[in-house]
Amino acid sequence: MPLDPKRTVAELRELQELTGDENGAQRVAWTDTWVQAQEWMAGKLDGIEMEFDEARNQWWTLPGDSQKTLVIGGHLDSVPNGGWLDGALNVVAGSEVLRRLAEEGTPPVTVRLVSWADEEGARFGRSLFGSSAAAGSMDDQDELRERKDAGGTSLPDAIGAHGVDLDKATDARSQLENAAAYLELHIEQGPVLESMDLPLGVVLGTFGVERHQITFRGQAAHAGSTPMDQRRDALAATGLLALEIYDIAAQGSGVCTMGSVVTKPGIVTSVVETAECLLDQRNMDAQKLASMLEAAKTAAAKFAQERDVEVEWERIWNIEPILFDDELIELADESIREVAATSHRLPSGPLHDAAEVSRAGIPTVMVFVQSLRGLSHTKLEDTKEEHIELSVQALDRLATKTIERL
Amino acid sequence: MPLDPKRTVAELRELQELTGDENGAQRVAWTDTWVQAQEWMAGKLDGIEMEFDEARNQWWTLPGDSQKTLVIGGHLDSVPNGGWLDGALNVVAGSEVLRRLAEEGTPPVTVRLVSWADEEGARFGRSLFGSSAAAGSMDDQDELRERKDAGGTSLPDAIGAHGVDLDKATDARSQLENAAAYLELHIEQGPVLESMDLPLGVVLGTFGVERHQITFRGQAAHAGSTPMDQRRDALAATGLLALEIYDIAAQGSGVCTMGSVVTKPGIVTSVVETAECLLDQRNMDAQKLASMLEAAKTAAAKFAQERDVEVEWERIWNIEPILFDDELIELADESIREVAATSHRLPSGPLHDAAEVSRAGIPTVMVFVQSLRGLSHTKLEDTKEEHIELSVQALDRLATKTIERL
Repeated sequence: MPLDPKRTVAELRELQELTGDENGAQRVAWTDTWVQAQEWMAGKLDGIEMEFDEARNQWWTLPGDSQKTLVIGGHLDSVPNGGWLDGALNVVAGSEVLRRLAEEGTPPVTVRLVSWADEEGARFGRSLFGSSAAAGSMDDQDELRERKDAGGTSLPDAIGAHGVDLDKATDARSQLENAAAYLELHIEQGPVLESMDLPLGVVLGTFGVERHQITFRGQAAHAGSTPMDQRRDALAATGLLALEIYDIAAQGSGVCTMGSVVTKPGIVTSVVETAECLLDQRNMDAQKLASMLEAAKTAAAKFAQERDVEVEWERIWNIEPILFDDELIELADESIREVAATSHRLPSGPLHDAAEVSRAGIPTVMVFVQSLRGLSHTKLEDTKEEHIELSVQALDRLATKTIERL
Repeated sequence: MPLDPKRTVAELRELQELTGDENGAQRVAWTDTWVQAQEWMAGKLDGIEMEFDEARNQWWTLPGDSQKTLVIGGHLDSVPNGGWLDGALNVVAGSEVLRRLAEEGTPPVTVRLVSWADEEGARFGRSLFGSSAAAGSMDDQDELRERKDAGGTSLPDAIGAHGVDLDKATDARSQLENAAAYLELHIEQGPVLESMDLPLGVVLGTFGVERHQITFRGQAAHAGSTPMDQRRDALAATGLLALEIYDIAAQGSGVCTMGSVVTKPGIVTSVVETAECLLDQRNMDAQKLASMLEAAKTAAAKFAQERDVEVEWERIWNIEPILFDDELIELADESIREVAATSHRLPSGPLHDAAEVSRAGIPTVMVFVQSLRGLSHTKLEDTKEEHIELSVQALDRLATKTIERL
């Protein structure tokens, strides 16, 4: 049976029918619907060896002449009211490639498909569960033990109901022992490829992220009785920073987002005393990311002084940039050019399981397929069928090229 | 008994002891504590004719040779956890002037002191209750009938428990029939006099106010995957307007305040799709106020276009500027210069009962006494004792000068 990219589209629609409703995909990890998706996928790969590891990652293995292993990965779990493609595309397209390879007999290297557990972290706010367990970077088990979902169920209880023991989840690490390359196909979840009218792109890596809460503190004062030149207006300082981050992003060739401002007392008759801002900065280059953060701190201090307010920074979260493998990037570029004439290299804004695998030292690359209107995590998420088909072809060629090099 | 300004300070402290607690003044209108304050004040003016009108305004009358009447007014009600001076200063200082005049025999014109009911509107969100009833400008009775306090008690029930029938409240209008002048002393509630190191100032009138909700609508987009030049960031447009209002205020010689911004979805991983801003603009000149509003609308439209977002305006409330009487402003200026050497003319940011009386066509003026740090509506509200004493002297002289002119 040769590669059939149309079948990938049909199977993705079938999965959506089975595990979605009028509000979108409902394959939230550690729910019955998620298990239903796993069973459905197992049915599609009947005859290929399947197992669940200690973190409930689902693995299919096509043994090759060598133990050296090519891994293709994705995730079947979705956010609530999610899209039909985010995560599932990777697994279903990977299964098509695996079936094609199985049909051709024993490959020179072992090929495995993995559906990572709980990439989204939708229920417990902890993303990349399964891939971090397998990559050996799950170092927050004590914190995870305390997590509860909105209904009050603890994470250990919820995963325990699916046979996972938090203390043993990191034993999943043995699964990557022989992994020599990791490939992941994903929808872009952004507008870049659409704006360039390109179906496919190679991902250079995932952004490093610096995430801070910045608090400007001025003085509440009566809107009617306080002259303009005597105001200590926390919102004015915020406004300056909300604009300055566009220059900072441009200078650092990265992105900066002020996604939230909370104003207090927040009433029409008072100057804003306190403005709490959330700032997210991302860059592919660790040094440029540090410079962008430094520039934002310098600017915030200057604006605070100009407006006679105080400013305070608190780090919420950060992660270093993760760069994918140069050789695999070249192979992905070649594969895309072969099926779609033109390729484009771009960083990934969102994190992915591929970042965890790459951090574990395994050569990794991702391929992005165009997202319509850049939308994801909504039932409006969509990609043209012909682009999905091209993406399956590109992944297939990339798998072949990678096997040849291993 | 000659005028005794120190007694005013002592009586204000006595009132605070009686009707305040560790959190500040608790004389909220239509409560037992408010009634207690009214009874206490009546005790201090024992022997002078007292009555409540149909809106529960409390009146004391010193009949003169003529029915032509000078009215001195203030309010005993406070916000919850309020200050010791806001409103009460006016009534207690007025009672000192009234006692001094009574001591001297029948004045040439009738002199009345009024403590207006529910200036603050703290319980039902409707300020200037009693003065608007007496001034003939209470035209929202149908709406007031529906109002409820936080505990679910309706306004008609609450005022009914104090003998007030909403349908008859406007009969209080007869109280101002012979009024020929109205004087009100008040703490400034702003920082202007303190910054000029002056104890007293004459109020030119109350600002006209334009109050709007402005909504900027862009597009939510992933903080990591959306290039800076493809963002439709509602917060960036908001930042531009939050800064521009300082120029608009300067050009119009008024004040502009953006007191609240609500960002949606308001998460660190998304560009702000919607920013709801509250804008308050004030000016003593109706035409300049209109120009300030026009300038803000023009600027908002320009910023929306620059940032590729939509903008929408909704008027929340407005009121025209109310100018006080030129001749009384001159007399107040003279009185202040006599007791404090230097006077200063300034607009009032907050509204006051005096605005209602002035709108009814009665020549009106206010005197402001310095507020420490500009604070009010908090237990931290304060004014130096020597400044309070000067303010009583100025009010007394102003009353004498006004009587001479009537």
